[in-house]
Amino acid sequence: MKDTINVGLLGAGTVGGGVLIVLEKNAEDIEKKVGVPVRITKILDNNAALASQLGDKYIVTNKLEDILEDPNIDIVVELIGREHPAKEFIAEALKHKKNVVTANKDVLAKYGKELFELAEENNVDFMFEAAVGGGIPIIRPLKSCLAANKIKSIMGIVNGTTNYMLTKMSAEHLDFNDVLREAQEKGYAESDPTADIGGLDAARKIAILASIAFNTRVCLDDVYIEGIENITLRDIEYAKELGYVVKLLAIAKRDDVNGISVRVHPTMLPIHHPLANVNDVYNAIFVTGDAVGDTMFLGRGAGRMPTASAVCGDIIDVARNLRHNATGRISCTCFDEKHLCSIENISSPCYIRLHVHDKPGVLAGIAAAFGAQNVSLKNVVQKAKVDGFSELVVITYDVSEFNLRMALQTLRALPIVEKICSVIRVEDDNLD
Amino acid sequence: MKDTINVGLLGAGTVGGGVLIVLEKNAEDIEKKVGVPVRITKILDNNAALASQLGDKYIVTNKLEDILEDPNIDIVVELIGREHPAKEFIAEALKHKKNVVTANKDVLAKYGKELFELAEENNVDFMFEAAVGGGIPIIRPLKSCLAANKIKSIMGIVNGTTNYMLTKMSAEHLDFNDVLREAQEKGYAESDPTADIGGLDAARKIAILASIAFNTRVCLDDVYIEGIENITLRDIEYAKELGYVVKLLAIAKRDDVNGISVRVHPTMLPIHHPLANVNDVYNAIFVTGDAVGDTMFLGRGAGRMPTASAVCGDIIDVARNLRHNATGRISCTCFDEKHLCSIENISSPCYIRLHVHDKPGVLAGIAAAFGAQNVSLKNVVQKAKVDGFSELVVITYDVSEFNLRMALQTLRALPIVEKICSVIRVEDDNLD
Repeated sequence: MKDTINVGLLGAGTVGGGVLIVLEKNAEDIEKKVGVPVRITKILDNNAALASQLGDKYIVTNKLEDILEDPNIDIVVELIGREHPAKEFIAEALKHKKNVVTANKDVLAKYGKELFELAEENNVDFMFEAAVGGGIPIIRPLKSCLAANKIKSIMGIVNGTTNYMLTKMSAEHLDFNDVLREAQEKGYAESDPTADIGGLDAARKIAILASIAFNTRVCLDDVYIEGIENITLRDIEYAKELGYVVKLLAIAKRDDVNGISVRVHPTMLPIHHPLANVNDVYNAIFVTGDAVGDTMFLGRGAGRMPTASAVCGDIIDVARNLRHNATGRISCTCFDEKHLCSIENISSPCYIRLHVHDKPGVLAGIAAAFGAQNVSLKNVVQKAKVDGFSELVVITYDVSEFNLRMALQTLRALPIVEKICSVIRVEDDNLD
Repeated sequence: MKDTINVGLLGAGTVGGGVLIVLEKNAEDIEKKVGVPVRITKILDNNAALASQLGDKYIVTNKLEDILEDPNIDIVVELIGREHPAKEFIAEALKHKKNVVTANKDVLAKYGKELFELAEENNVDFMFEAAVGGGIPIIRPLKSCLAANKIKSIMGIVNGTTNYMLTKMSAEHLDFNDVLREAQEKGYAESDPTADIGGLDAARKIAILASIAFNTRVCLDDVYIEGIENITLRDIEYAKELGYVVKLLAIAKRDDVNGISVRVHPTMLPIHHPLANVNDVYNAIFVTGDAVGDTMFLGRGAGRMPTASAVCGDIIDVARNLRHNATGRISCTCFDEKHLCSIENISSPCYIRLHVHDKPGVLAGIAAAFGAQNVSLKNVVQKAKVDGFSELVVITYDVSEFNLRMALQTLRALPIVEKICSVIRVEDDNLD
């Protein structure tokens, strides 16, 4: 039986540095939990300054083979980030029969299938708890604790930047651009924030979660994506008046008839929904299973130490498998055929804000246009005058994407309609 | 390698019946996840009617040895409940080298040490995800996902009955006794609700969680317990005015100097704390670790199907271990010596409601009595007159139990004080 678990670390940047801290600080307890010491022996990093700083304690190299060809190294931890060369490094490590732990959602969402197959062929572990929700335990709960459930749906706030921005807009009555600037100043948004505010980051994460929850490989291309770029303060405040909160939700649902739908878009949630109170940079994932009912997992979705917590949890799990010759214990669970719901069949209630000419009969005209497409309305509220037009807010009952688009097309053609300003989906069981 | 995992079920009551449903309904997916079928073959139950009803599908027996001496049975699931004979049955099963899954918090909180030792000696699994928080994944996240953390504190709403009652009192302005009667009518409270409202049920659960979080065996006797019997609508409404919500919290904290404190008592939480919005029969466990920061796990803490979800998750986990000859993979983690904080050293801010004579200088007198015991006050608010007395509400900053008790003793002796009506601890980082 092994008397030490040796780890090779690829990338000693923000998260990698956090992993070094956690494994050192809590070494004694981790040794007791695993039965033998768990230590990082070699680090791959090109940063010369970092290399000289870490050189006292670790062997720092810029050659991958120094790690992969070291027979004493059991686990390779990939924290380089982005797609390349991270993907190639992970693949090489698996081929060298190294167990791999990663936090890399980009690689997983795109090359998951290939890498899981490599892991299985080589009978090693491939773990990625940190790839979704930072420090929040969600991958292992889905794969183990909730494994007896047929998962019906997952709804997540899985991007901290956008959640911070929407929280701030709502709490301080600020416009999108002002909040974005502030988030960038505070380091909560990157200088190029496109992947966050456009929904791409959340899309990668929900593709990973949906693959596990529905036992079928969901790729990034399968995810319908809308970001928060067009969310205005006005919509957020109208939502509040109606008892809703606007969140960027990543949603994966399984419908026995229509199949699986996976999407990211701004969503109005009833103020009492557990996700509605998840604010600032916190993330949360709301999972509904046929046996367990509703559950939610909340925590910090990013940051050095929370992400390191998840990475080190995976390292401990692999170490326990190594101690019992049980690596590959939980392999890929994507055993089902993929049956995706076409976008036209996705349905939910909707919030629509529009500007109309202030004439008698205008409400009747609007209602008739919706009715012609079988769209039932919960309410139509006339708001203040804006630029000489009447501003209307409409909440529909459950409507399919197809019928919604048809209704919007009809509305746009009506002479009484000046402009459709916003269309935001609503998650509200009372409107189904 | 085993071509089937066979399970023996002890007790086919509410939760046991749920386990039968889940394993049958989701059998196909579970087989794919484990690699071989997982099925219940034998059931121990004394209920003759049930036996004849289940007899078509399962072998129903009233002799424990029919299950323990069956070499084909790999896992024994104990769902009899209460202490005896459940504890003896679990012990016998472990001695027969059967892996054991249980939902029995009573047995765990009292006989955990003995049973874990038996499991270890026999190199089998002993799992109990369902014992705390029903369907909520919390045991496995603590043992695996968060294993690299030094856990600082756990605060949980782990009793559905009392949470339902407190939610109802607050939302509908009802008195304790009215709500208790309604909860009993709805089946949310038992005919003898003592263990729930007195805090004993929550105490068992926090003893289990603290043992895992702090790697040391915390027993029921180590838990300081106060129930919600004395919580009045008046306190709940005053709390609301001050921005707090009253919850029955189970709290385990680690303090490097004073040691571990484990307690159950009514607690005022700031309205924006994630636990403050956990309502009705929902449970939630708020865990703070040195790396991960704050996390929360929410879901249904009781009920047939949620509890069955957790039990079946454990069965799947054991089955995966069996497939890899890795049972006993995660054994007991109570490797540290117990260092309990004495009750006098536990400290937190406090809410105190008292009736005083309406005389000049009364506020100064009260403030002086607190000051003499080094208790700093955040605010003193004079409320309405009650029965000819002035009602005061006091919020203190962090105060040790010792100083608090001394201050209360001094107050009671003051001629201006008619009565100390309530003392409720507060969890508020702003008052530390």
